[in-house]
Amino acid sequence: MNNFIFQNPTKLVFGKGQIARLSELVPSDKKIMITYGGGSIFKNGIYDQVKAALKNHTVYEFGGIEPNPEYETLMKCVAECKEKEIDFLLAVGGGSVIDGTKFIATALTWEGDPWEFLRQPIPTGNALPLAAVLTIPATGSEMNNGSVVSRREFKEKLFFFNDACYPKFSILDPTAIYSLPKKQIANGVIDTYIHVMEQYLTYDNNASVQDYWAEGILKTLLDIAPKLMKDQHDYDNCANFMYSATMALNGFIAMGVATDWATHMIGQELTALHGLDHGVTLAIVYPGVISVMHEDKRNKLLQYAERVFNICDGTDDEKINKAISLTAEFFTSLGVKIRLSDYNIGDDTIEEIVRRFDERNFVLGENGNITPSMIREILQHVK
Amino acid sequence: MNNFIFQNPTKLVFGKGQIARLSELVPSDKKIMITYGGGSIFKNGIYDQVKAALKNHTVYEFGGIEPNPEYETLMKCVAECKEKEIDFLLAVGGGSVIDGTKFIATALTWEGDPWEFLRQPIPTGNALPLAAVLTIPATGSEMNNGSVVSRREFKEKLFFFNDACYPKFSILDPTAIYSLPKKQIANGVIDTYIHVMEQYLTYDNNASVQDYWAEGILKTLLDIAPKLMKDQHDYDNCANFMYSATMALNGFIAMGVATDWATHMIGQELTALHGLDHGVTLAIVYPGVISVMHEDKRNKLLQYAERVFNICDGTDDEKINKAISLTAEFFTSLGVKIRLSDYNIGDDTIEEIVRRFDERNFVLGENGNITPSMIREILQHVK
Repeated sequence: MNNFIFQNPTKLVFGKGQIARLSELVPSDKKIMITYGGGSIFKNGIYDQVKAALKNHTVYEFGGIEPNPEYETLMKCVAECKEKEIDFLLAVGGGSVIDGTKFIATALTWEGDPWEFLRQPIPTGNALPLAAVLTIPATGSEMNNGSVVSRREFKEKLFFFNDACYPKFSILDPTAIYSLPKKQIANGVIDTYIHVMEQYLTYDNNASVQDYWAEGILKTLLDIAPKLMKDQHDYDNCANFMYSATMALNGFIAMGVATDWATHMIGQELTALHGLDHGVTLAIVYPGVISVMHEDKRNKLLQYAERVFNICDGTDDEKINKAISLTAEFFTSLGVKIRLSDYNIGDDTIEEIVRRFDERNFVLGENGNITPSMIREILQHVK
Repeated sequence: MNNFIFQNPTKLVFGKGQIARLSELVPSDKKIMITYGGGSIFKNGIYDQVKAALKNHTVYEFGGIEPNPEYETLMKCVAECKEKEIDFLLAVGGGSVIDGTKFIATALTWEGDPWEFLRQPIPTGNALPLAAVLTIPATGSEMNNGSVVSRREFKEKLFFFNDACYPKFSILDPTAIYSLPKKQIANGVIDTYIHVMEQYLTYDNNASVQDYWAEGILKTLLDIAPKLMKDQHDYDNCANFMYSATMALNGFIAMGVATDWATHMIGQELTALHGLDHGVTLAIVYPGVISVMHEDKRNKLLQYAERVFNICDGTDDEKINKAISLTAEFFTSLGVKIRLSDYNIGDDTIEEIVRRFDERNFVLGENGNITPSMIREILQHVK
């Protein structure tokens, strides 16, 4: 096991009916800016629950934060928060709204041009206090310190981390899933699955509990995802999904282990260049990564085959190939197309992505050995 | 899954060589009281590492905190801390030293007689800041808000919880295990195992990830404990053990599930009356609890048999009985005797324990249905 330092101060408030607790969770003397996305919270009743809980608080609102939250939009909110002298941010939405709100919180305490801490990730160390009401299980942003923001004018999608951006609390009411479009459930399941894989399927470093925990989330997702795609009104399945998404990226399964993140880094470029959903980019890229990198990941792929898919028969290579196939089939079973050609993406884009990593002098993967030319190989594999 | 609220602010600093980080982790302007136990830290070099790391800090020391920390001893430390105007406590030891230090931290900010918050657990809400350097994996006190203190003059062992007692940080260096007496390793493994069982082996409430996580710790312990009993110098086995002990009682596996704790409550009385090691009391009582309560715990016992022990053959009853036997055998394989008669404890003690629970009007267990007469049955079962 590797040495590590871990701390996660976010308070999780989980379960049906918990949105009403906002009244006690948000300090009553704060001027609150509620941030949200395209307005689904008006249809599913969550907006009304939030407003009812905060009826004795001073509340402003900023809507319209996009999927893959846009720098320009967020900067408008920054200006409004300054004007209103806001001192508490409440994100009501999915990962994009929460990520965007982390950017707003950081920008509000940042002296220079906020583009700086995105272009050249640097510890910012400060932020306005923020909290979240989660409506879409997927990114884990509700219980971590990370954020991803896009700037369409530059076709860029960039991330930053700020310890001051751990939400003070996050309310997770699984009934929010009842009204989600199936596509968002599928994307959220894939995002959660790949988050786990990025921290699990690397090399063996004898972290026994962490391996079992990662496998526990994967097995849960494999079990409940088909059920959720059929019926998204079973409370326990919704609760297990929402819980899995948060546990997949709050640091719990990352302690003392190597991590990969190549798929996220490559997928991010597909979103920046073509606007693909985050979950879709992961479903496309991941089978390529584990196919091309299967020698580096050999031991863990075998463990994954045996312990997650219960593949007992065949040679090691057969088990590994079967596990890679089953992984891709799981994504397609959720209705997601997983070839670049399904999205009319070809060599031009592949070469542009390779050029970008080349320019940045980036190497990816748990061994730092995924070079730009291997990124080309990975993307050609999933063309 | 049940509704829940979770928050754990402790910073974990894990791995070999991490004690040196004390110099940066403890604020330099604090007057620190280092608390410790019987002096094993002088033999294993941990005392020297702590002192070297804090050579530029103002440091006082208080040693002699007993296993099952004693009220009278702790009150002496409280007096010394007041006299020296201490404002930071650093526990260097196992669960007893850390628990004792939590009591000291709370007593130092408590207006009345500190016995009050032990006799009648009440939220105290305040405490001097404290941190820990862990030397014995077992109780999980290094990453939770609980504490158990004994008062031998009354033959009492009582617990309290205080959110201000989460350690600010805890340093976990697995090499501390290299010099532990085998008995302490055995006790620590059993304590960790039963902590997991108290949160896992209740009734099924469809918390999929939590079940897998609990089972992951149990399977890790079953795998590494025999290896550690033979050779306690394998770093990764030590790391997996220390990690398991912390994860077993930091709230991670308790989210959204029912919990039992009958074994701890009954075992506590055996320590209070006969001075038995905490781990030993659990190994004695637990097989009695799951035997007597097996109908209430039926579904989970079956899952435990199948998923933890891989018992595939036989009827459900046969699987359950086999799992109960294997659990008891695991404890005895660690060199612990698990009958009351092994410790010359008989009906007098059983009746006194029943009387105590009767007097307190306590019922135990996840269903609140373990009455004093059932406690008698459990203890008779393990006589």
